[in-house]
Amino acid sequence: MSASGKIVIALDGMGGDNAPAMVVAGADIARQRYPDATFLLFGDEARLRPMVDKTRWLKTACEIVAAADVVTNDDKPSAALRKRRSSSMGMAIDAVAEGKADCVVSAGNTGALLATATVGLRMLPGVRRPALCSFLPTVRGETAMLDLGANMQCDANNLVEFAVMGSVFAKSVLGIDAPTVGLLNVGAEEGKGNETLRDAAAMLRVEDSPVAFHGFVEGNDIGAGVVDVVVTDGFTGNVALKTIEGTAKLYTGFVRQAFKTSTLAKVGYVLASSAWKKLGQRADPRRYNGGVFLGLNGVCVKSHGGTDALGFANALGVAVDLVKYHFSDKVVEELNRLRQALGEVPAAAAGGVAGAG
Amino acid sequence: MSASGKIVIALDGMGGDNAPAMVVAGADIARQRYPDATFLLFGDEARLRPMVDKTRWLKTACEIVAAADVVTNDDKPSAALRKRRSSSMGMAIDAVAEGKADCVVSAGNTGALLATATVGLRMLPGVRRPALCSFLPTVRGETAMLDLGANMQCDANNLVEFAVMGSVFAKSVLGIDAPTVGLLNVGAEEGKGNETLRDAAAMLRVEDSPVAFHGFVEGNDIGAGVVDVVVTDGFTGNVALKTIEGTAKLYTGFVRQAFKTSTLAKVGYVLASSAWKKLGQRADPRRYNGGVFLGLNGVCVKSHGGTDALGFANALGVAVDLVKYHFSDKVVEELNRLRQALGEVPAAAAGGVAGAG
Repeated sequence: MSASGKIVIALDGMGGDNAPAMVVAGADIARQRYPDATFLLFGDEARLRPMVDKTRWLKTACEIVAAADVVTNDDKPSAALRKRRSSSMGMAIDAVAEGKADCVVSAGNTGALLATATVGLRMLPGVRRPALCSFLPTVRGETAMLDLGANMQCDANNLVEFAVMGSVFAKSVLGIDAPTVGLLNVGAEEGKGNETLRDAAAMLRVEDSPVAFHGFVEGNDIGAGVVDVVVTDGFTGNVALKTIEGTAKLYTGFVRQAFKTSTLAKVGYVLASSAWKKLGQRADPRRYNGGVFLGLNGVCVKSHGGTDALGFANALGVAVDLVKYHFSDKVVEELNRLRQALGEVPAAAAGGVAGAG
Repeated sequence: MSASGKIVIALDGMGGDNAPAMVVAGADIARQRYPDATFLLFGDEARLRPMVDKTRWLKTACEIVAAADVVTNDDKPSAALRKRRSSSMGMAIDAVAEGKADCVVSAGNTGALLATATVGLRMLPGVRRPALCSFLPTVRGETAMLDLGANMQCDANNLVEFAVMGSVFAKSVLGIDAPTVGLLNVGAEEGKGNETLRDAAAMLRVEDSPVAFHGFVEGNDIGAGVVDVVVTDGFTGNVALKTIEGTAKLYTGFVRQAFKTSTLAKVGYVLASSAWKKLGQRADPRRYNGGVFLGLNGVCVKSHGGTDALGFANALGVAVDLVKYHFSDKVVEELNRLRQALGEVPAAAAGGVAGAG
């Protein structure tokens, strides 16, 4: 982000089931919402140019950069890495690595994006593993959850770093001042779960921690919104996320079926149509369409592959929030504070507490 | 179960938030449903006697056995084990161990019940670890899931044994002839997840396996009813189960709120009251109130601690189904068939295929 507040967003023009039309239309919505944003759009120039020319807001704020290759949904991460220098995804990531853009957004292949972004952007200083983070609707509002699938196994240090990153994410994207963070476990009591979880909890309970650690939370606490950030390993997080999706679908189906069981119920269904609409908006998956790979040295947002222009615009909004909040700097700063609190680094390393003047 | 089809059920009269009244009332409902069942009711005789005397069906089919101690919800498993010979829970389990009863049902402390039942009943031959199993509503009907929290870490052999036990459970309790079994993972593709899952899948794919193995399933496949049995470790299963509960509560709340947003919607809500009732019945947690510890040498059913008489009666129904289906014998038999298919035991061990005549 330049001093003037301008943000440059690198876009994978060819990623996503409905690309490139969805990408262009989504960027158009985002440009209207964020007039300070400009776009580097990577992909098939012959297809992109006429689409961009037809947009209302985007056309004056978008530079198209030709990319010869496309990463497909079937590409293995290794295949995506091989065409890193020529694909729309890889070139968009490199634009961030080279300082030409502030963030990259792609609706393409998740595994390919994670691998390419990890190689292209590298890790933030002090972070060992990237984590996929998103936010979900709860009774109280919204809760961020990570890791949603980047790491099948995590040690205590990984979980602690995720806690710091999730906390800064909630501050930047959800606008929460001192987000509470919970570790997902099978019970709230201290002795529950496994050693990794207990070790991570002990580290997060340290005095002067920058993380407002709540303790252990259980699966039902996610939807109840007991904490602002839920931290877990990528296996459990992926299962929990998809279980939430499946259960939401099941119960929505139950409600629909129930309203077909009698004529009165059908009339009630029609009378309540505004209520259905409100419900649909509240639980609209497009509102929750911004998975972010946290921990990389650069902002990288993964939009859902099947999303539409509105969903893609929301993912762009997440990227803008992270850039404006200086997400990466804040994570490095808070991790450093935590390591000081844990006695792992001397206080001076944080920027001259003693004898700096 | 005697040759005449009579079933003797041992009841922990003092376990559960609403015990003993709920236990007695639940057994009364069960006795009406299963006239072949008789009951051994363990607990405080002075409190139980007048309650049983007032029942309609139970009073002629129930023997009260005095137990001096009660396992409380705060008791650690070690404390429960110490009073095993004198507590209503421990004595009910011992009745099964001694062959005086066919099964035991308790709404008491889960950890205490698992520990006491494992010590009192021991493991089924060929089973290494017990698993907590229950069934859940899905789009297609019902799906069994295990382990829901008995084992925080599982190896491939544990998961394979859970698959066999879950399959037999679905046959006996859900009445499904050849239940399909899925291993919970982060993706359906063969290479997904961790080594434990891939090893377990390889074993379950063996030719002549008694398990109809579907492959890997994801979190959203649970509610979609993609398989009849979902197998996972106790950590993931517990998180998934509670996540389902939390999400169901969240979406039910969303629907209720949505119907309060306008007068028309409120009228619609009232008109649709029969629909709400049907929905409530379908998703009624009391219908899904039968967690079972599978793998023990004896049927042990854990009812939800906060359940009412109807929920407790349903848990008794699960116990009756398992006894009538000869659950334990079938598990030993199918495990043996699987081990033969895997070449771990010779075919003769299953009961004389070659040269037996």
